[in-house]
Amino acid sequence: MTYCVALRVEAGLVMLSDTRTNAGLDNIGMFRKTFTYEKPGERAIALLCSGNLSITQEVKAKVSRAIKDSVEDPDVETILNCSSLHRVAHLVGEAMKEVQVEMRSGMVAGDVSLHASILVCGQRRGGKPRLYMIYSEGNFIEATADTPFFQIGEHKYGKPILDRMIRPTTSLSDAAKALCVSMDSTLRSNLSVGMPLDLSIIPRDEYRFSLRRRIEADDPEFSKISREWGAVLKQGFDSLPSMID
Amino acid sequence: MTYCVALRVEAGLVMLSDTRTNAGLDNIGMFRKTFTYEKPGERAIALLCSGNLSITQEVKAKVSRAIKDSVEDPDVETILNCSSLHRVAHLVGEAMKEVQVEMRSGMVAGDVSLHASILVCGQRRGGKPRLYMIYSEGNFIEATADTPFFQIGEHKYGKPILDRMIRPTTSLSDAAKALCVSMDSTLRSNLSVGMPLDLSIIPRDEYRFSLRRRIEADDPEFSKISREWGAVLKQGFDSLPSMID
Repeated sequence: MTYCVALRVEAGLVMLSDTRTNAGLDNIGMFRKTFTYEKPGERAIALLCSGNLSITQEVKAKVSRAIKDSVEDPDVETILNCSSLHRVAHLVGEAMKEVQVEMRSGMVAGDVSLHASILVCGQRRGGKPRLYMIYSEGNFIEATADTPFFQIGEHKYGKPILDRMIRPTTSLSDAAKALCVSMDSTLRSNLSVGMPLDLSIIPRDEYRFSLRRRIEADDPEFSKISREWGAVLKQGFDSLPSMID
Repeated sequence: MTYCVALRVEAGLVMLSDTRTNAGLDNIGMFRKTFTYEKPGERAIALLCSGNLSITQEVKAKVSRAIKDSVEDPDVETILNCSSLHRVAHLVGEAMKEVQVEMRSGMVAGDVSLHASILVCGQRRGGKPRLYMIYSEGNFIEATADTPFFQIGEHKYGKPILDRMIRPTTSLSDAAKALCVSMDSTLRSNLSVGMPLDLSIIPRDEYRFSLRRRIEADDPEFSKISREWGAVLKQGFDSLPSMID
């Protein structure tokens, strides 16, 4: 499995993903799931991928190939030259649809899940920070102030803390902290999500990544958050009233 | 959906369940999911049910009918007169298997999930406190010191706090508190789990329920735990170090 989460607050976009993939319990690998695209000062975009790896890799290949082709032929529309973030979501959705059709038509061995989903986050000059979730079918939804974050993969373990902590006014620093706590809970409760992690940040109206950080298993700052969060929970738990007399 | 959780610590057994059922999002009902059976001083047993309601109600009906029949005919084996808690799990598993076979044979409209699971918890005089999880197929597993709790239904949201807080040495009072916090997180993150709740406790070597409590939506003690836990998390979160400089 996978756990990817992205959130859009007033101050910008923050994204976090794990790197574990498994095709069965005994076939575990490590793959990056966050891919970043940037024209500094004009636009910054991140794609976070979950689900069937052969599908998401192919979608990413299509997106990247278009960017390469556009060097020779500027008429090729890409996520780096298209008119809006909404159009970026469309391009990724179209690529998803094409890959799904190709894959399904050739699939005869039935039992493989072709489910995949992709978070598209970014901002271009002249637009607002945007966050979309692309489904297997290529259609998508956008995050709003009412629902400031999207999760894909093993999302349930880490949802309660986000429900409580994330508001549109949350700072980028607190947002990154909340994503780390959410990921830490997921890592502890589910073996199919694993270190290292990829944390990235696009501050509002800067059209660039202010952070693209690989967090390794022994990262001192992440370890400190994990340790202190455990202590906070323990201490807070002990201070709660009892349910039985 | 449903969220039921039961745990076995050295001091005894603690169980908590919600009461929401839904057959589709617009067909929501309230049904008790914890059923208690007691011969005070000899044995105390709780069944917690999740999944297809027509299945679990039928299993419960079989279990209760046998107890009624045994009044007339003491040779009828029931969960209240059988030789061990392991045998109780067997009887519930057998009932599950029979109901599944009956239901499946008559089912022609295909799309209904007949998945169901039942937690069986209890102690009889001469035995230890036991906790079993019965699957749809009627087979079952038992909780051990390594895995002191079982969850059925919407289990993921409330798992991280149990992973952190529950040890074999946890007191019954702390165990009840942890189940309430775990349920509170689930209630906040998932609409298909709802108040009121049923909390029950079987202290070790007492062969009786020391508590069977219905927790209503406005229960002052549960509300206090929920409110204070929110404050504890908020305060603890603010005290964590930042991930970005």
